[in-house]
Amino acid sequence: MRTVYVNGVFCPEDEGRISIFDRGFLFSDGVYEVTSVVEGRLIDFANHMARLRRSMAELALKAPAGEDALLSIHRALVDKNALTEGLIYLQVTRGAADRDFLYPPEETQPSLVLFTQAKSLIETSAATTGLSIVTLPDLRWQRRDIKTVQLLYSSMAKMEAKRRGASDAWMVEDGLVTEGSSSNAYIVDASGTLVTRPLSHAILPGITRTAVLRLAEETGLAVEERAFTVEEAKAAREAFITSASSFVLPVVTIDGARIGNGQPGTITRRLRAIYLEEALKTAI
Amino acid sequence: MRTVYVNGVFCPEDEGRISIFDRGFLFSDGVYEVTSVVEGRLIDFANHMARLRRSMAELALKAPAGEDALLSIHRALVDKNALTEGLIYLQVTRGAADRDFLYPPEETQPSLVLFTQAKSLIETSAATTGLSIVTLPDLRWQRRDIKTVQLLYSSMAKMEAKRRGASDAWMVEDGLVTEGSSSNAYIVDASGTLVTRPLSHAILPGITRTAVLRLAEETGLAVEERAFTVEEAKAAREAFITSASSFVLPVVTIDGARIGNGQPGTITRRLRAIYLEEALKTAI
Repeated sequence: MRTVYVNGVFCPEDEGRISIFDRGFLFSDGVYEVTSVVEGRLIDFANHMARLRRSMAELALKAPAGEDALLSIHRALVDKNALTEGLIYLQVTRGAADRDFLYPPEETQPSLVLFTQAKSLIETSAATTGLSIVTLPDLRWQRRDIKTVQLLYSSMAKMEAKRRGASDAWMVEDGLVTEGSSSNAYIVDASGTLVTRPLSHAILPGITRTAVLRLAEETGLAVEERAFTVEEAKAAREAFITSASSFVLPVVTIDGARIGNGQPGTITRRLRAIYLEEALKTAI
Repeated sequence: MRTVYVNGVFCPEDEGRISIFDRGFLFSDGVYEVTSVVEGRLIDFANHMARLRRSMAELALKAPAGEDALLSIHRALVDKNALTEGLIYLQVTRGAADRDFLYPPEETQPSLVLFTQAKSLIETSAATTGLSIVTLPDLRWQRRDIKTVQLLYSSMAKMEAKRRGASDAWMVEDGLVTEGSSSNAYIVDASGTLVTRPLSHAILPGITRTAVLRLAEETGLAVEERAFTVEEAKAAREAFITSASSFVLPVVTIDGARIGNGQPGTITRRLRAIYLEEALKTAI
């Protein structure tokens, strides 16, 4: 049984409970981060904390603890659960208060919940075989840059992808791909240019996205930040996703159309390799 | 201290807790209803249950209990809390399971949470003085017809209204009013016609909306279901909102512009009165 963290207390997972009045439960009034653990160390931790800070600031959410304390909790969970490879999930909400759309009094304590998930991240079949993607209309709210727990549509989209025999979904708005259901989306066009949507309120500012774009430029790849259509994606030489928990994963079909020769692309595989190398080097 | 209901158990409110793995908490994977209680009786209960059924069906959520059982729990909460006037909040989620965007196994038990809020519903200052409304862009997801707990933007909108010194917000999309932050929106135009947006994925199918439109037609009022602009609303003779917890409430200003003579309108007051009369007559 896992040990989890809830509002100051480490406890067995089946005792990890929050009030039914928690605004995370009643109003989706909360944000989260998922940090990968490899070889018992945290990947890109400082950037996850920076994004958490930004999410909280956008929603005027109070920080439940300082970043040193959050780092300590992450490390304690790695130890207590003997986690060598997997994820640490962190959620902050505006806390528990009698139900009211208006925010509760300033002195209300935010809630802080963390738990681990053991999982093979580096050796995964998806990295070898690639993902099959279906495209779906992007029906999510218009502030996807804030990493809130309003994940119902992403969940529905993954279920719809599964129902259609695919691995995952890409979201489409006004004919243009926004992002994956829980990842950023990329193509490599016929000229070998890496294309991905620029940051805006429409997509999440991925931690892995920032790292991969920097590494791509360092390796001399042309990078263009612009939105692309589904048709462009289907005609691309390569396609892939990035996320903090999947790193870089190749996409081999989109709506049934084969991308390139239907195998994970060369550039994609190279980016995954150099991202992982860098991530392990800088893990804490 | 209130008595609340959580997954089969009545308990004191400070013991009302759910798992941190509840999908309502992690994914906003839940729906809710709020039923008004007046003179210790439930208003429009059957229609709330019908909408709950619809919300659950849209999300392939399993019902946590039959409707007879739900009625019994509502009545028990009224009794245990000696509730004469106020609200009963009900939330159903897909239950607790290890975190995964994909829905959990079929046998996962949905969660069921109910609690009361004592509140003056009939004698409220807003009914006499009317509401001041600000308009804000509607940034919510595109399936607002499903009553999910993805309420963060509605909450943000109410806070923004408060910051601007107003009572509440109306949402605007493509230049047209969708609905209030937690209510349906109406105007009475210069010719005396009641205008409100037709049902679609853009708005919640309000229980009180259905009742008020029927009563309006029965009293000989012309009713037109079409979307209206903010400019139309500002130039309207009357404006109002309906919701299960506020019934019918007059709007007297929109973005600072006075509606009619700046006092609650005649038709609005009449609709509130006949709605309340009917609601009390049919309460169970």
